[in-house]
Amino acid sequence: MTKEPDLPGLDIVIFGGTGDLSIRKLMPALYRSELEGKLAAATRIFAIARKSQAVAAFQAKVRQGLEHYLNDGELCEKRWQVFKDRLHPVSLDIAAVNEQWDSFADQLQASPQSTAVFYLAIPPSLYGQTCACLAEKSLISPQSRIVLEKPIGYDLESAQAINDQVAQHFDEHHIYRIDHYLGKATVQNLLALRFTNLLFETLWDGKSIDQVQITLAETVGLEDRVEFYDRAGALRDMVQNHLLQLLCLVAMEPPHKLDAENIRAEKLKVLKALRPITGDDIHRLTVRGQYGEGEVNGAPVPGYLTELSAESKTETYAAIRAHIDNWRWAGVPFYLRTGKRLQERFAEIVIQFKPVTHLAYGRAAGQLQPNRMIIRLQPDEGIQLQLMAKELHRYEPHLKPVTLNLDFANTYEGFSSDAYKRLLLDVIAGDQSLFAHRHEVEEAWGWLDPILAAWHHPRNTPHPYQAGSWGPEQADALLERYGHHWVNPDPADADPKDAGARS
Amino acid sequence: MTKEPDLPGLDIVIFGGTGDLSIRKLMPALYRSELEGKLAAATRIFAIARKSQAVAAFQAKVRQGLEHYLNDGELCEKRWQVFKDRLHPVSLDIAAVNEQWDSFADQLQASPQSTAVFYLAIPPSLYGQTCACLAEKSLISPQSRIVLEKPIGYDLESAQAINDQVAQHFDEHHIYRIDHYLGKATVQNLLALRFTNLLFETLWDGKSIDQVQITLAETVGLEDRVEFYDRAGALRDMVQNHLLQLLCLVAMEPPHKLDAENIRAEKLKVLKALRPITGDDIHRLTVRGQYGEGEVNGAPVPGYLTELSAESKTETYAAIRAHIDNWRWAGVPFYLRTGKRLQERFAEIVIQFKPVTHLAYGRAAGQLQPNRMIIRLQPDEGIQLQLMAKELHRYEPHLKPVTLNLDFANTYEGFSSDAYKRLLLDVIAGDQSLFAHRHEVEEAWGWLDPILAAWHHPRNTPHPYQAGSWGPEQADALLERYGHHWVNPDPADADPKDAGARS
Repeated sequence: MTKEPDLPGLDIVIFGGTGDLSIRKLMPALYRSELEGKLAAATRIFAIARKSQAVAAFQAKVRQGLEHYLNDGELCEKRWQVFKDRLHPVSLDIAAVNEQWDSFADQLQASPQSTAVFYLAIPPSLYGQTCACLAEKSLISPQSRIVLEKPIGYDLESAQAINDQVAQHFDEHHIYRIDHYLGKATVQNLLALRFTNLLFETLWDGKSIDQVQITLAETVGLEDRVEFYDRAGALRDMVQNHLLQLLCLVAMEPPHKLDAENIRAEKLKVLKALRPITGDDIHRLTVRGQYGEGEVNGAPVPGYLTELSAESKTETYAAIRAHIDNWRWAGVPFYLRTGKRLQERFAEIVIQFKPVTHLAYGRAAGQLQPNRMIIRLQPDEGIQLQLMAKELHRYEPHLKPVTLNLDFANTYEGFSSDAYKRLLLDVIAGDQSLFAHRHEVEEAWGWLDPILAAWHHPRNTPHPYQAGSWGPEQADALLERYGHHWVNPDPADADPKDAGARS
Repeated sequence: MTKEPDLPGLDIVIFGGTGDLSIRKLMPALYRSELEGKLAAATRIFAIARKSQAVAAFQAKVRQGLEHYLNDGELCEKRWQVFKDRLHPVSLDIAAVNEQWDSFADQLQASPQSTAVFYLAIPPSLYGQTCACLAEKSLISPQSRIVLEKPIGYDLESAQAINDQVAQHFDEHHIYRIDHYLGKATVQNLLALRFTNLLFETLWDGKSIDQVQITLAETVGLEDRVEFYDRAGALRDMVQNHLLQLLCLVAMEPPHKLDAENIRAEKLKVLKALRPITGDDIHRLTVRGQYGEGEVNGAPVPGYLTELSAESKTETYAAIRAHIDNWRWAGVPFYLRTGKRLQERFAEIVIQFKPVTHLAYGRAAGQLQPNRMIIRLQPDEGIQLQLMAKELHRYEPHLKPVTLNLDFANTYEGFSSDAYKRLLLDVIAGDQSLFAHRHEVEEAWGWLDPILAAWHHPRNTPHPYQAGSWGPEQADALLERYGHHWVNPDPADADPKDAGARS
């Protein structure tokens, strides 16, 4: 976050390079870096996959992906010609230390002055072995960087094992655990808003803030991640990484300097201060759900078990009432939730301030809504302030909620957010500010382990909820017990155009 | 401010009824009340003037005024027919108790069940006599109300004398001292924003607010008020009433209930807490100016003395650094300024918050601007929040100011502000919330009297400033001494369409 990347010769090596993530996210992000002139001339992009693929066929596949996933007008023929020539598909079975590895090593070492960025878009169970092979073939230089996709493991123990394996070959400050939510412009702006505005900085604590809600709601069901997802579930897939990372950014103490070391240290402190949820509290403070059939965006959809074609107790919905036991946040609940097949696709952080202490206008003037700051990450990015103001049409005093918008697409003309591009440029620049330290990952697993264990106890079953709803009714009850309510998007604000937007 | 007016038979009697204020402001306001169905069937409007005027001629004059001053589409033929028949010009020399008074009394008493609202749009020197005549002719009932235009007097003594004269015939709670700035929707919304939003209510004091600026800037020169203005000057014409009333609304303690009694009591407390400016402080904390020739809106304009065709030391510009010596505002300067022939016509209250205490982003990320809340009264009405956010186009962190707008014309579709209509409906409804109590008027004069006396000392001369500038350089120096600067509108924001807009 501190300097414009000064690119040396650079090779980007994507393990899982022909997979969905690579085509859908990484290639567009790299192409956009190309478009902005941020890829050095000598940069090569190696896409590693088990299946052999001809250069031309791979280039055509990437091209097709760009045509689909870039915005209108972004694909420039001239730049594509340059970008295309960087693309090198590599056929390689990671599991087998064989001549494929040797041949890849030769290719990589043909440009010895280059730094390699290894991007592991493969199952975490292969992380250790991949690192070991890279080491064996002497492909790791002191400047090499490695990017790890989530999830790192499936509990604390497995995460520690993976982190240990990677650490045998890479220093922690060369390891980039990527969470694309942290690359979103709005998330970075959340920090800027917090730390450069007295209006927010002064009110950012339990004296003024009543509750925080963080929601990552999806409308999709299982998609093509059947096997992975059913083994993981919502808690591992979304809460352990995205939701807890966002919680950290909202809750962390202001670091004296916004660099990787200080930001990560402050996030870790938040995770350490999370009040453990164990024993009876698990039933009291968490809700686990699994969708049945229903209707999403007007179309009937099958239930989870039908999609899976199997019995399963995996949760597709998770909600938690969390507390941070420190001076700043004493008494403030942090409500986390995520789910598949919910009514609307949206990702939002809601900072709800306390109500004003006295109603000077009297009841006839209407109900006061507490102030809210809403940080919207998806489908559109933007920040809103919800205030109360006077209804001007009426003679008698009447109050109504009004919304002040900091809408990035409008405020910042020509703005288009690409979290992966941002994060890839950070990797290239050597800036770890927006990447999780292993301590964070492990602390998060440690906090979740008791919940995971209880949820996966054979006697336990997830609450059913209808596809297209807002999740199980128990999740509503979780908040209502404290006089709170989930903040869902106003149906009137729904923009049908956004329904298919990709983050 | 508490109830929809429940109109009995009502007569509105405007002394000075054919004058500029009546045609330009009162008739459009009354016509709009008609349009909204807020004038009871029996309502009559008497326009009293010395010169005799035929009914048809007067109606034509009002009609012409409406055509000029109403917005497009507001003039409805059908409503005009109803409104027109309410209009009764009355020829009457106030100063002479004669048969004109008798005849007017007959007219008024022809509808004995009616309540009369007497609106004095005449020089304050006639207020006492007018009241005395009304009393002598038994035209004052226990429900009668009287509306007084500013200025009430020219110093404390004269204001007390006028208030005493009126008080002989009207109870204080039937006396409406009108200040049309207080009828502006934005000013009422300022109170709503303060008292219904934790975000502002919590920060509304000297711990969070650095300074307050209130500016009423005009581009016009003397216009047709030559004689009056040269005797008054900016301090009496604008500071004593408008600027100090706005200061009161910004600074007052939150009343437990927003009714006339409590609002006025709180405003009075602010005026009483104003730190006296006397002796050497007058030179140190106030600036007085008079415009010379220059250029306004691209056209050359003569200086004040040329317009006046006489020598004069009257100020056309006034600036004051005021302090409120109470718990809430200790240490916060309130900068007040007003002037004629300034660069742009605008009326604004700027609440400037303190800077954040630490620059976590480092100097390279750009200069931080303190947060501001800007309440704009003129030419357009609206409320803005100025915040800092991250520049999204750039890879390296860079901060920039962004503005969140609560623009009434856009937020409240179909909104058009008519302060006089608002205030006339308040008079009809018997609501004094937005009108000044005599104690406020007198307290304001008492605070200004030492400044007036010093300014008008023969040895004292106003500082010259060029027409079309932002006033005398001494006014800039007044703030610079404390490291502050006047907040002027951004020239880039200037909307040439607004140049001729009417408030």
